[in-house]
Amino acid sequence: MTIETPTRGTAASTTEVRLLPSFVRGAWWSPEPAARASATPVRDASTGEVISLVSSDGLDVQAAVDYARTVGQKSLGALTFHQRALVLKALGAYLTEHKAELYAVSTQTGATKRDSGVDVDGGIGVLFTYGSKGRRELPNSTIIVDGAPENLARDNSFGGQHVYTRVPGVAFQVNAFNFPVWGMLEKFAPAFLAGVPSIAKPATPTAYLTEACVRLMVSSGLLTSGSLQLISGSVRGFLDHLDLRDRVGFTGSASTARSLFEHANVISGGVGLTAETDSLNAAILGPDAAPGTPEFDAFVASVVTEITSKAGQKCTCIRRVIVPRGRVDDVIDAVAARITARTVVGDPRAEGVTMGPLASLEQRDEVWRSVEALLAGGGRIAFGSLETAQTVRSDGSVGVIPEGAFMAPIVLRFDDSDAPAVHTIEAFGPVCSVIGYDDIDDAVRLANLGGGSLVATIASIDPVAVATLFGGIAPFHGRVLVLDRDDARTSTGHGSPVPHLVHGGPGRAGGGEELGGIRAVKHFMQRTAVQGTPAVLTALTGEWRAGAPTIQAGAGAITGASAAEHPFRKPLSRLRLGDAVASAPREITLDDISHFAEFTGDTFYAHTNEEAAAANPFFPGRVAHGYLLLSWAAGLFVDPEPGPVLANYGLENLRFVTPVSPGDSVHVTLTVEQITPRENEEYGEVRWDAVLRNQRDEPVATYDVLTLVSKE
Amino acid sequence: MTIETPTRGTAASTTEVRLLPSFVRGAWWSPEPAARASATPVRDASTGEVISLVSSDGLDVQAAVDYARTVGQKSLGALTFHQRALVLKALGAYLTEHKAELYAVSTQTGATKRDSGVDVDGGIGVLFTYGSKGRRELPNSTIIVDGAPENLARDNSFGGQHVYTRVPGVAFQVNAFNFPVWGMLEKFAPAFLAGVPSIAKPATPTAYLTEACVRLMVSSGLLTSGSLQLISGSVRGFLDHLDLRDRVGFTGSASTARSLFEHANVISGGVGLTAETDSLNAAILGPDAAPGTPEFDAFVASVVTEITSKAGQKCTCIRRVIVPRGRVDDVIDAVAARITARTVVGDPRAEGVTMGPLASLEQRDEVWRSVEALLAGGGRIAFGSLETAQTVRSDGSVGVIPEGAFMAPIVLRFDDSDAPAVHTIEAFGPVCSVIGYDDIDDAVRLANLGGGSLVATIASIDPVAVATLFGGIAPFHGRVLVLDRDDARTSTGHGSPVPHLVHGGPGRAGGGEELGGIRAVKHFMQRTAVQGTPAVLTALTGEWRAGAPTIQAGAGAITGASAAEHPFRKPLSRLRLGDAVASAPREITLDDISHFAEFTGDTFYAHTNEEAAAANPFFPGRVAHGYLLLSWAAGLFVDPEPGPVLANYGLENLRFVTPVSPGDSVHVTLTVEQITPRENEEYGEVRWDAVLRNQRDEPVATYDVLTLVSKE
Repeated sequence: MTIETPTRGTAASTTEVRLLPSFVRGAWWSPEPAARASATPVRDASTGEVISLVSSDGLDVQAAVDYARTVGQKSLGALTFHQRALVLKALGAYLTEHKAELYAVSTQTGATKRDSGVDVDGGIGVLFTYGSKGRRELPNSTIIVDGAPENLARDNSFGGQHVYTRVPGVAFQVNAFNFPVWGMLEKFAPAFLAGVPSIAKPATPTAYLTEACVRLMVSSGLLTSGSLQLISGSVRGFLDHLDLRDRVGFTGSASTARSLFEHANVISGGVGLTAETDSLNAAILGPDAAPGTPEFDAFVASVVTEITSKAGQKCTCIRRVIVPRGRVDDVIDAVAARITARTVVGDPRAEGVTMGPLASLEQRDEVWRSVEALLAGGGRIAFGSLETAQTVRSDGSVGVIPEGAFMAPIVLRFDDSDAPAVHTIEAFGPVCSVIGYDDIDDAVRLANLGGGSLVATIASIDPVAVATLFGGIAPFHGRVLVLDRDDARTSTGHGSPVPHLVHGGPGRAGGGEELGGIRAVKHFMQRTAVQGTPAVLTALTGEWRAGAPTIQAGAGAITGASAAEHPFRKPLSRLRLGDAVASAPREITLDDISHFAEFTGDTFYAHTNEEAAAANPFFPGRVAHGYLLLSWAAGLFVDPEPGPVLANYGLENLRFVTPVSPGDSVHVTLTVEQITPRENEEYGEVRWDAVLRNQRDEPVATYDVLTLVSKE
Repeated sequence: MTIETPTRGTAASTTEVRLLPSFVRGAWWSPEPAARASATPVRDASTGEVISLVSSDGLDVQAAVDYARTVGQKSLGALTFHQRALVLKALGAYLTEHKAELYAVSTQTGATKRDSGVDVDGGIGVLFTYGSKGRRELPNSTIIVDGAPENLARDNSFGGQHVYTRVPGVAFQVNAFNFPVWGMLEKFAPAFLAGVPSIAKPATPTAYLTEACVRLMVSSGLLTSGSLQLISGSVRGFLDHLDLRDRVGFTGSASTARSLFEHANVISGGVGLTAETDSLNAAILGPDAAPGTPEFDAFVASVVTEITSKAGQKCTCIRRVIVPRGRVDDVIDAVAARITARTVVGDPRAEGVTMGPLASLEQRDEVWRSVEALLAGGGRIAFGSLETAQTVRSDGSVGVIPEGAFMAPIVLRFDDSDAPAVHTIEAFGPVCSVIGYDDIDDAVRLANLGGGSLVATIASIDPVAVATLFGGIAPFHGRVLVLDRDDARTSTGHGSPVPHLVHGGPGRAGGGEELGGIRAVKHFMQRTAVQGTPAVLTALTGEWRAGAPTIQAGAGAITGASAAEHPFRKPLSRLRLGDAVASAPREITLDDISHFAEFTGDTFYAHTNEEAAAANPFFPGRVAHGYLLLSWAAGLFVDPEPGPVLANYGLENLRFVTPVSPGDSVHVTLTVEQITPRENEEYGEVRWDAVLRNQRDEPVATYDVLTLVSKE
């Protein structure tokens, strides 16, 4: 079979077409008009009409990098995580208001309205998620403390702690053509939250949509100086400008990724590079999921959704449909029937069209070549064909549109499930291949022949099958979705990365990770172990560490005789790490314990039955309730009159260390451990280190008390 | 100046020297005797005597890799994290018992007793740390749940969670010559804990000490089959045998690291590679640390310790001494005086020797060449010389020992602090260079000219100087130690990686991370996002998720009328995730609140003063104490008679969500969330999900209750 590329309109008409601008060093920049001659024409995917010319000819990449490292770093450095998060939230709201403009442009890429939703709303969703997580999961400062402090000296005078600080360079982001908005935003948002300025470089075929989005973001006035630059056009050699201060995020082909990984500045220059590349994602039908089961139906629906949404141009698309050998025909028939019933290929501007063209004729030709290679590698076409598809024109009429990059879905089957072609050739369009497995171990083996994938689906309601399949394929996958009757309707879908979860996979998938909430923010930061005294660790982490100096109010709560001001009387503006109150002791009697048991109903034998309690391996006899101790501790440290402390909203890391017997007494120390002002609120959060001790000064209970405190 | 390498003894005497064996596929393996001709002779660093011949000629690396992937993976997969941790602990104890044997061998490498302590005891310490952290910080299972669950559906029927599962391959570990025991163990321990078998490949010059250690480990009978193999000799081309299942840990030169990073199986084959390479670590003297201050003294002591311990053959050694320009002479004088007073170079077998030879004559020649290059690059010798040093022989006499790799400490100074040589040439011996800075920003700039380092020391007691220096250099460093009067004595030292903290650094330092507690374990595991119903997430993570099925005992605690067996009556052996108890409601009156306030002393106005409480932004009026609610919840869910539940040892993640007013009632549900049997104990830990709700079923408080429960 010969593939002919239809002749295209000449570039004569391109003289009026605009040269797509870049946004660098705080301003819009366009190449000289002379660049038109060598610029790349970009066409409407459905009509072939040239809609823009793309060239970065004459653009000074080094100057853009320098601008990011200076102006961008400075403007972002002036904001805390919470402030940056609020910018992201506001950007999300701004783009939501203007999203109709983006949808209109998106149609030109061949995207249906639903496809545009995935790209545009998906991208906005990333902004909102980071806007929210940045405030809920990060401190209102500029460094992230990682993990617990480590005491390294017997006398507690020396310890260690890990912190993340932002890298002092630029996040250089090279994106693929298929998600011009989401792709840019999912890389931009975590970098921005980390405090690292971005240079976005979209793929040329759909760069005009990224440009439209960046134009809105710039118009919003919300971006801080230098925090986002856009390069429309080629950035060949950009790695020459980068060093260990910088991070590169790449989404695209494995071959381009390879050339980036081979660059000296990556190999030994310290440039951090994350790649997300080709992936032959599998969907595995469980042995239990026979035709007629909800899992079978959900599986078939998922396969059809994946290969038809964005015309299958998704790095997460299902490429390998791995099913019990005896069900290959059932699955092919059901997939074919569903495509036939639901898929209408055409110009997305036409009513009723459910699948648009590929992004360009070049892209379609590439997919055709891949299908030919799959056929040469042992595949047979089970549904569809390589004929130029009959498609719906924008006016609703049907015919062949040679200028449009249309292609109808194709389902292949391989009799030899081990055929290398099916596990290595990615046809980046509406194409998947069905192969059969013998048993669950075989299914695992086949899935893993993909050599590392972004995502796999397991469709099964059988817990043993799910556990075996998951255990076998997890190390080869960045994400695994378990589809069954109970989540078929609410699942976010095989092909949709969600900002909460990591996106990326090992091996062929590029070995990188993006998204995953705050995990991605850390990619733009360096983890450093800091060692020093508790005072130094307190100063450098923003979290008070036991052994660091305190400003102590003495025994105020009980006696009223306070040596210093009780910290409950200090608003956030005056409260400091190490502000503390130490209480007087209070003795606990058997009556107290009995009374507490009766009042609360907590008559657990350790508190009520001397003989039984003494038989317990941890107690010397009847002991005070842990909750009694907590409650009394509050009575000991609280300053009762109205003041800046508004509420105790929680408690963390409580450990009961030493039992308290009748006759023991307890006293408590409460120390300010962390102060987190909330943006746009009159109050903030204060975490207090609480230590309850007995009359021998042994720790009885240790915990963190969480309060809300007025700023003034 | 010409450097002459002393003539060595011929290899004639090597016929009786043993060929160093490897340990592969569960057995000791030695090359054929014919390999002696081409084997590398290894010499005692002090005497030049040939002590072993090293060759891997004929060793089947692929077979070793296959053995690890099959036998090693299987034996380790049969153990949980806690069981593996106990093996590490036992190995630590076994090596401690036999450490005299290792010290004896270590002397041959040129190590003094103190040097051997760093290597041998340091390595054993890694085993103990992972033995301890594995049980304290990991579940008693085989996967690690990473981060919080993410709900992804409005009706909670679909969510996501990250888990780490071990990679199904081998951890291939290439080590440097300077820490033959520690280097092997610090890579082995986290891989073993992860469940991934190791192949250790020590550097040839000191491979006999690693072999001695592995021999002890094998003799101990503690290692599971295939969990550790040793290759003595070259492993050229080993990356050809590895793929995305495998991980490589490399410590050594930047040039070798480069060749590894350039390998196709790393670039695009998915082999995970962590490198730790050359690093020109800085020590910065703060502007405040004038001569006579404790910081100045601690700084000088640290410089001398670093360049003399292990004869400066440490990747973490201080190479660049960065001090206020006006203090260069003071520092040089003080360092010189301390070396003169304390450093005795010689055969470590001799009494009074404090610094042994370098590892080999080749190594010394290499250091000499580097010093020459530093001199050519603008350095001047401020202390010491390149003359062959007078050294102490093992019998105590003093003279030149041409067969020994001795070298006396050298301190260089650079008038031009920006001289590229000082920031790029690592003389891997008892050598450092002193440069001056103008102000703190200049000090930061100079430190960062190292292009990424493993560690830096800041010596200062001035909080502003410390914060500025730390903020500036953190992104270029894997570890930063702040040295001052309060930790000078207890500090673990600039040059000592501790297993609790990450070891590694960006850029020139290799870009990798090792150690750091459980962080290193995760390097041998793949992070996968799993999506599914709460039931599926529960089954795959081993942690019960809200929405997953429960086995409910009804209102047992209060009414005694239990629909199913109360979960407090079930020992660990019968307890299952989702076992739950739901209580009857209990009404809260104003009297209850008043009484609780009086009994506990917690008279905070929100509980005692209607008007003041109503003025608080979060409360409708007087509300119940959070601790009252917790205490009553315990009264509602507890089953009081002696039984398998032994103690409530803590509580986590408590949030008070809705205030409770007089007249409201509360009820509680307690559900088994996680079960962690303890090895070698009669009990285990059970984490319970607790939700307290009001009469409108709104959540009032959510938290986790931690209990100890008998196994039977």
